[in-house]
This record gives sequence, C-alpha cells and structure tokens, in this order.
Amino acid sequence: MSQKLAPSIRISFPLLALILQCTIIVLFALFIDYRGEGPKKYIATYPVFQDVNTMVFLGFGFLATFLKRYGHSSIAFTMLLAAFALQWATIVEGLLFDFKNFKIQIRIISVIHADLSAVSALVAMGAVLGNTSPVQLLLMTILEVTCFTVNKWLLNILFQIDRKVSGMYLHLFGALFGLLVSRILYRPGLKNGHEKEGSFPISDLYSMIGTIFLWIFWPSFNAALLDMDREKAVFNTYYTMAACTVTVFAISSLFHNKGKIDMSHIRCATLAGGVAIGLSAPLIPSAFIAMLIGFSAGAISTLGMKYMKNALELYLDLHDTCGVLYTHGLPGIIGGITHVTLLSMPSVIEDSQRKTMYADYWPTAMLVTMAMSILSGIITGFILKLNIWKQPPDLKCYDDQAYWEYPHLVTTF
Amino acid sequence: MSQKLAPSIRISFPLLALILQCTIIVLFALFIDYRGEGPKKYIATYPVFQDVNTMVFLGFGFLATFLKRYGHSSIAFTMLLAAFALQWATIVEGLLFDFKNFKIQIRIISVIHADLSAVSALVAMGAVLGNTSPVQLLLMTILEVTCFTVNKWLLNILFQIDRKVSGMYLHLFGALFGLLVSRILYRPGLKNGHEKEGSFPISDLYSMIGTIFLWIFWPSFNAALLDMDREKAVFNTYYTMAACTVTVFAISSLFHNKGKIDMSHIRCATLAGGVAIGLSAPLIPSAFIAMLIGFSAGAISTLGMKYMKNALELYLDLHDTCGVLYTHGLPGIIGGITHVTLLSMPSVIEDSQRKTMYADYWPTAMLVTMAMSILSGIITGFILKLNIWKQPPDLKCYDDQAYWEYPHLVTTF
Amino acid sequence: MSQKLAPSIRISFPLLALILQCTIIVLFALFIDYRGEGPKKYIATYPVFQDVNTMVFLGFGFLATFLKRYGHSSIAFTMLLAAFALQWATIVEGLLFDFKNFKIQIRIISVIHADLSAVSALVAMGAVLGNTSPVQLLLMTILEVTCFTVNKWLLNILFQIDRKVSGMYLHLFGALFGLLVSRILYRPGLKNGHEKEGSFPISDLYSMIGTIFLWIFWPSFNAALLDMDREKAVFNTYYTMAACTVTVFAISSLFHNKGKIDMSHIRCATLAGGVAIGLSAPLIPSAFIAMLIGFSAGAISTLGMKYMKNALELYLDLHDTCGVLYTHGLPGIIGGITHVTLLSMPSVIEDSQRKTMYADYWPTAMLVTMAMSILSGIITGFILKLNIWKQPPDLKCYDDQAYWEYPHLVTTF
Repeated sequence: MSQKLAPSIRISFPLLALILQCTIIVLFALFIDYRGEGPKKYIATYPVFQDVNTMVFLGFGFLATFLKRYGHSSIAFTMLLAAFALQWATIVEGLLFDFKNFKIQIRIISVIHADLSAVSALVAMGAVLGNTSPVQLLLMTILEVTCFTVNKWLLNILFQIDRKVSGMYLHLFGALFGLLVSRILYRPGLKNGHEKEGSFPISDLYSMIGTIFLWIFWPSFNAALLDMDREKAVFNTYYTMAACTVTVFAISSLFHNKGKIDMSHIRCATLAGGVAIGLSAPLIPSAFIAMLIGFSAGAISTLGMKYMKNALELYLDLHDTCGVLYTHGLPGIIGGITHVTLLSMPSVIEDSQRKTMYADYWPTAMLVTMAMSILSGIITGFILKLNIWKQPPDLKCYDDQAYWEYPHLVTTF
Repeated sequence: MSQKLAPSIRISFPLLALILQCTIIVLFALFIDYRGEGPKKYIATYPVFQDVNTMVFLGFGFLATFLKRYGHSSIAFTMLLAAFALQWATIVEGLLFDFKNFKIQIRIISVIHADLSAVSALVAMGAVLGNTSPVQLLLMTILEVTCFTVNKWLLNILFQIDRKVSGMYLHLFGALFGLLVSRILYRPGLKNGHEKEGSFPISDLYSMIGTIFLWIFWPSFNAALLDMDREKAVFNTYYTMAACTVTVFAISSLFHNKGKIDMSHIRCATLAGGVAIGLSAPLIPSAFIAMLIGFSAGAISTLGMKYMKNALELYLDLHDTCGVLYTHGLPGIIGGITHVTLLSMPSVIEDSQRKTMYADYWPTAMLVTMAMSILSGIITGFILKLNIWKQPPDLKCYDDQAYWEYPHLVTTF
Repeated sequence: MSQKLAPSIRISFPLLALILQCTIIVLFALFIDYRGEGPKKYIATYPVFQDVNTMVFLGFGFLATFLKRYGHSSIAFTMLLAAFALQWATIVEGLLFDFKNFKIQIRIISVIHADLSAVSALVAMGAVLGNTSPVQLLLMTILEVTCFTVNKWLLNILFQIDRKVSGMYLHLFGALFGLLVSRILYRPGLKNGHEKEGSFPISDLYSMIGTIFLWIFWPSFNAALLDMDREKAVFNTYYTMAACTVTVFAISSLFHNKGKIDMSHIRCATLAGGVAIGLSAPLIPSAFIAMLIGFSAGAISTLGMKYMKNALELYLDLHDTCGVLYTHGLPGIIGGITHVTLLSMPSVIEDSQRKTMYADYWPTAMLVTMAMSILSGIITGFILKLNIWKQPPDLKCYDDQAYWEYPHLVTTF
C-alpha cells in the first residue's frame, strides 16, 4: 500500500527544507529590521491582513482538496509552501524595494506583500499539484516568488509603476508560470493517473470551504495594498463577485445537456470575478461596470473549463490540475485588458491623473509581465525536469499515501 | 442514477438567472452611486461587515449540510441565493430608503443592510430546502427580500421606527414567511422522501462548521447596524450565546430517555439565544438579563425541536427541513416580546427616551411584521405552486444528484 | 450499538449543567457591571477578540476531530466547556482582579481574559479527551479555570507581575494540569480502547480546519492583551509560525524511515512556535531570534511526539489523547526559559526597564506556575476519580455513540 520512496527523495526533501529554513534565518538576522507605523495605520490594516492570511492558508489549502486521494497533500503542501514563500518573499521584496543602509525595514504592508507573493506561488502550484514532488514544489516556489518580485521591480524601474498596482498581476503571472512548468514536466504516463484526479462529493464539499473563504475575503484581497479608494475597491469587488456567481450558475446549467450544474464550475469560476477586477477595483466609478466585468469573467471561466480543459490536454499536452487557467489565467487577462481600457477612457480618469498613473505604459507593462511569467516558467520547468530531483513516478501521483504517514490507519475514505 | 430534468426546467433556471442578473446590472447602471463615508466609519465597520459576510455565505451554507444527500445543494444554493439577494436588496432597500435625485447612494452600511436581507431570505429557504427547485428558490428570494424591505419601510412610515432596529425582525419575518410557503407547497408524497432528510455523523460534522461560525460572529451580527451602544450589544449577545449553549446541552440530555444529547439540538438551538437578543441587545443594561433570555430561548428551542417538530408535520402538514421555526421563529417571538417588555419598563429606559424610541408603537409594529410575513408567505406559496415552475417530483427531493454534475464520479459518500 | 448510560449519569450531567448555569446567572446578577471604554480602544480590539474567539470555538473544536470515532464529541464538548469556562472565568477573574465597590466592571479586555482562561481549560481537556465523562469535564473546567486565575493573582501579589504577561502561561499551566489529571485517572483497561484513538484520512482533514485557524490567528492571540508593542508581537509570532512550520515538515520527514511526513506532526507541532513565543513576543527585537525559537519549538515538539509519546504511556502510564505535552507543554517550557533568558540579557531590555518589568522575579514566577499547575492537577485528578462521578467504562471511551443521538442514523462513517 505505501511504497518506499527512492533513497534520494527520502533525504533530499528534509535536507533541502532545513537548508532553506536555516538560510532564511541567517538572511533575516543580517537584513531584517522591524519598523512600526504607529497604531492608526496598523489598526486599519490588521483585520485586512488577517483576511488575506485566511485566504492564503485556508482558502487555497482547502480549494484543492477536491482531489479525492490528495486532500491532505493539498492542504499540507499549501501550508508548507505558503510558510516558506512568505519568508522568502519578505527577503526578496525587501532587497529590491525597501533596502536602506543595508537593512530591510518591514511594516504591516511588507507582510501583506509577502502574503500576496505567496498567493502567486500557490496559483502556480495549482497547475502542477499531484505531478510534482515536495522538492520540486519548494524549488518552484523559490523561483516563482523571485521572478514575480523581479517583474514588479522591473515595472517600477522601467515605467514607474507602483507595486501596489503591479502586485495585482499575481494571478496572471502565477497562472502562466505554472502552466508552462506543467507543460514542460508533462509525461505521457500521467494520463493513466488521471482517474485519481476526480472528486468525491465529500471531497467537493471540503473544497467549498476553500472557495467560500476565498469568495468572502476577496474584497479584502483587492483592497489590502491600497491607501486610498479602499472603500470603492471593496464595493466593486463585492458586487463583481455577486454578479459573477449568479452568472456561473446560469451558464453552467445552460450548457449542460440535462440542465445540471457542474460542481467544478461553482468551485472555481465563481472566483473569476474577483481576479478580473483586481487591477481596476479602485478605479471603476460605478458598480455596474464592475458587474459587467464579473459577468464576463464568470461566463468565460465557466465555458473555458467546459470546452478548453480537455482540448488543451489532448492537443497541447498541457495538464492543469486545479484549472488555474480558468480561475486565474483567463480572468487575469480579462482584468489586464479591462484595466488598460479603463485607463485610456477620459471619462474614467482625467488627463491630469493620467500622468500620475503612468497610463500610457500599462499596455507594455502587461506584455512584459506575460513575457516574464512565460519565460521564467519555461526555465523553471527545465530546471525541475533535471534528473537530480527525482520526479515521482507517474502512477504514484495524486496519492496522499506517497507522502503521508497515517498512524492507526484503518481504511481509506 | 441521474435523472433527466424536464425540458422546461433545463431551460427555465438558466434563463431566469440570466434575465435577473442582467436586469440587476441595468438597474445598478441607472440608479446606484458610490458614496464614501470617510475612513473612520469605514475602518470601524469593515471587520464587522466581513463577520456578517462569513455568517451569510459560510455559516448558513454549511449549517444545512447535515442533510446527508443534499450537502452540495445546501452550500451552493445558499451561495447563489445570497449572491442574488444582496444585489436585489441593494436596489429595493435603496429605492425605498436612500433614493435622492434619482440616485441611490450606497455606503458600507447599505451593504450590511443588503447582507441582512439576504439572511432573511436564507432563513426562509431553510424551511423549504430540498422540496423546491432552483427556479422556485430564486422567485422566493425576490419576493421575500422585497416584502421584508417593504415591511421595514412601512414600520418607518407608520411608526417612525428606525430600520436599524426593525431590521432585527429578519429572523421572525424569514421564519414565518418560509413556514407558510412550505405549508402551501406541501404534497403528501413528500413523506416518502424524508428518509433522505436525516444526517450522517460526517454530514453533521460539516454542519457544525456552519453552526460554530454563526455562533462566534453573532455578536457582530447584532451590533453591525448600530452607531452607539455597539459594545453593550456585543457583550449582551456574547453572554447570551454562552448561557444558551450550556442550557441546550442540559435540556437536551435531561429530556432524553438515555441521557444522550441530540446533535440536531446542538446544531440549531445553541443559536437561539443570539436570535432572541437581537432586538434588545443594545438596550439591556445588565448581562444577567441577557443570560436569562438566552436560557429561555435555548430551553424553548430545544423542547420545540423535540416535541413540536413531528406533531406539526403530522397534524398541520407543515414541513420544516432545517427547523427554522425553532432556530429563528420561536426565538424571534421571544425576542419581540422581550423587546416590547423592556421598552415598557421605566427602569430600563427613561421616560425622556421613550419618546425618541417610539416605545408605544412597538407592540403594534411586531404584530404588523408578523401579519406581513404570514400574508406575503401565503401569496408567495401560491405563486410558487403555479404549474409553470415545474416543482421537482416528490421522490427526487433532497438529492444532490438531481442538480449537480460530478465529474469522474466514482461513488457516493 | 448504543448503550444505556448508568442512571446516575443520565441525571447527573444535565442537573450539574443546569445548576452551574443558574448559579452563574445569579452571580452575574449580583456582581457584573458593563463598563464602556470609548470607541477607540474598542475598534482596535474587537477584530482581535473575534480572532481569539474563532481559535477557541473553531480552532480547538476541530483540532481534536482527528479522533476517528469522537469527532462530534470533540467539537461539541469544546463548545460546551468554552461557553461555560468563559462565563466562569469572567466571575473568577473579576473577583480577583476587578472587584470594586462589590461590582465587577467588565470591558472588552475582560472578555479576552475570559477567552484565554477558556483556552487554558481546553488545553487541559486535550489530555483526557475520550476518557472522561461530560460531568468530569465540567468539574475539571471549573477547577482548572479557578486555579489558573488564582495563579495569575498570586504572581501579581507576590511579584507585581502583570496578568497580561502571566496570562501567556496558559499553555504550560493547562498542559501540566491536564497531564496530571490524565495520569491519576489512568486505568489499565484504557489500553484496549486505543485502537479507536487513531485517525481516518477524512477525520485528519477535518482537524486541519482547526490547525489552520489556530495557525492563522496565533499572532492575534499573542497580541490580544497588549497595549503597546502589539505590532512587534504580531510580526514575531508570524515569522515564528512560518519558520516552525517548515522545520516540522523537514524534521518529520528526516526521522521517518521512508521519508514520509506524519500527519499528526503537521496537525500539532506546527503550532508549537506560537506557544513558545507567547511570553516573549512583544520583547524580541529581531525576527531572526523569533524564528530560532520557532525552529527549536518545531523540532522539539515533532521529536517529542515521535519518540516520547509511546514511552510515556508505556513506562509512566501517562496517556495524552491530543498530545498536549508536545503542542503546549514542551513549547510552553521552551517559551518560559526563553523569556527568562531574554529578560536577563541587557542587550534586549535596558537596566531601567528591568525594574518596571520585575525581571528578577520571573524565574521564580515560572517555577511557581509549574508547581501550581502540577499540584492543582493532582488534586483535581483525585476529585475526578471519586466514585460518585461514574467515569465511563473503559471500552466505551472514544465513542461518539455513547453521548450523541443521531436522528435517522443509517450508517457510521
């Protein structure tokens, strides 16, 4: 029942994790300093920070528990990667953005940035979950967080774009990055493992815990980094999510031959509205515009899951375990295009504002981000494919029992 | 295993949902404007708003997952109805209360009002869950939210009663409304479906997620709309919930022939205290009064579930899937009577205050609310009974597989 | 399948619960007064209070659902004991600390103190869960909360130590107290019941809901009582948790003969960092020190669970159902020693501060706390062993069906 891992895996995962953790502690000792911000800012931001934390650890963790034989791995690897990513992101983000006198001064907003980088890595993880060993996941997280932060830094250097806004590209970046890693790691043998990829009704219920927490706190997510217009960003996200949800139910039923609703659409596509509105949430002046974006994102995400998922796998050998293309990728592209369009409309932002927002640079910025994510995903994919990491054999994928010891195990569920 | 829905249902649900969503977007485009309130009010209210949101989507969603074959429908229909109800409530509430210069100006408090109206609709849904199609649920939600808001408007016009207070009638209104709809939709064939209505231990555990989140955040719920006395409302609710919970455990065990505790009492009756204290939470000057209310509500709710539930079904053909009569109805009546009594006691509010609180009108206001909920419930019931909505055949009720597509389904749980 | 409880249990539990609840209401009527604090303090503290509440009811409730046949008891008894403990703690804490003019004035901080005392009782419960009847659990809670509060009062009287700091001994106190109760209640027959103590993969997933909520909100927990340095306490706890988590994954895999990770380590030891940093969180000036504490706590807690658990049971007849020694006991000792060490280092606190913090008294204070918890645990153990409480027969322990009525029960899960 439980197979012996190859000796190299047995040692490589704990050693890698220990080395990484010790390295991070040394880097923190060298560079990290606390900087208070006064209670006012802190009190306003702390509840939002905890909402985002709930999304990272609980939301993303449970979202992937629909995998019927991989629920524990989904939650626990999310916990591991997020705990690691937020430490690593604190350092990378700090070195690139807040490095003064050889010290990084962290504030509550730094920790939110770190959380958001962790989300970006978790999105990428969603594409390869079940096909990758913990060693590969850790390496991927290091590279994803680094490249995502470097991209924000590039956009800042090249176009003066504030990382508060470019940080919202995290969905698009994470999804494209993850999909390319998944494409390069593709092995024909995976096809045999896919029966394990389905869901039980009971595991689908678990993953709804994730979906609902992500849904509820998405307004906090989109407003977390903002100083001004937080209220508007919250309202826009809230009504977008609501419109998107009703749309997903309708479209899912409309395109089913018996009028049924597909649980996987509810699980994922209901979140597409929040992704699509991310960049524009503080800009949009009227709720109905936000709701139109939610409507489109929900419809496209649902139809994408229904008609594209199998085709991509069949014709492009592109496997996407959690459907991140439809929850984060396509809505991220819709969001990017909407944002660029809104910025070019004089009725939305005035000419005097255009300059402070560097509106002209945004189309290029979006293309740079997509290029960066694709390029770094490809490189990461090839690094992860190196033989030294001992990718798990094809047929053991998606199986909790490959990684977890259950004491007193009586039966599987 | 999965039965084909009648052609009319196949089309009617998605079309209705799409038409409703598009209508709402048009209405938002015509009428809705954002109005900021300044950061101070916003910072104080946002965490409370998120607590209420958690109750709406997660609390009520998971509460009904005890239905052993209907867990996914419970969560997903809650999500659909709540997402729809909060949009619809924004419009109805805005038109009746905040309509100026042909515009509705929404603020964070408007969104909380919308959430509370959604809760009112979800309470009503609890009475008919499993017996009704999604089309019927959507129609019921429209009518319930509209009538509940009209009732608040009437109380304001007739008695100058502030909607901050009348909004707390949501439990009583929703429960009576839902019970009357359920009574009118009753079909003898339902009796055969009731074996599906029970719970598994595992589905009972799921529904405890809902119970506990409702329990924790009930202080936020009762204080969400208040400007003053928020702290007192929170303390009163908190100690009421605690006293109610211990009482429910004791009473449930005391009246069981083997001294066991009934899981369904823990799931529902522990929340009765929060319902009963809703109207009076900011008024009560001492915690022990609140705790006495919690004690009474817990005891009555538990005994009601134990001795009334089957009798009502047997003799009055009144079926109540989630027991909303015992969680929301009876405690709502206790709460209304307590509130009227407190207002008439000079030791609680002084004579000078009596006038500003319109204390004399409250007994009438409670009767008006009950009459409105009963009347609108009856009318809604007859509308939903019209043949055109294609109520689900009796024996398919309570079955997730009637509505949901499970990809890769291997087995039921 | 379901066995009849002895007649005395049938009556003793509900009667005890009712008498306790009525006594508490009378005490509240006699002594408790509300005292507002002005909105500023309240707004800053309310979200933190709700985070702590979520930990108490949801976190601890679900943490113990890993017991495969005892999930409902774990959640529901947690709810009962917490609801009772917080009322009782309000009175005991108030009488000892806030008693003026024969009245106890409660504020939001009083309620947080009550929550923390409830946690202390829940930690103790973790050691004996499954071996004890509800009557015994209620009695243990009364005694634990009382002795824990008396200990805080003693430290205040003897050493001028503020209860904001001594309150953080709750983990150490609860764990030692619970372990000694467990030792004294030990019966050889328990050994036969232990096969029921294991977990299913599905029940392990449930308990991860508890773990993750505890994990996320631990920064709020450690900062809840603080006036100043809240931000620093949050950051320190946050990075400690992260470092601890990565360490636990690494150590668990490193010491497994196949390189697998033990689910029970993830469930419990990932929280050890938060416990260990509790006392020192507002003191530590640099994140890396906090991370070193997290690293050590994670490693020791994991290795303790792996190598000590069975040995303690075999040689010392010490049974510890939820492993509170490894989640709360050992990390609590690490935390106490760290705190004493930090206070003695001039680089951390200056000499002028030493006096205001009563630094010299802390080593004695820690020893007093340990002595108090051990002593009161022993006395409580012997009280609970008295024949009148009718401890559950050995073989029925760990079985939900001994206490719960499932309506329409079809099958166990």
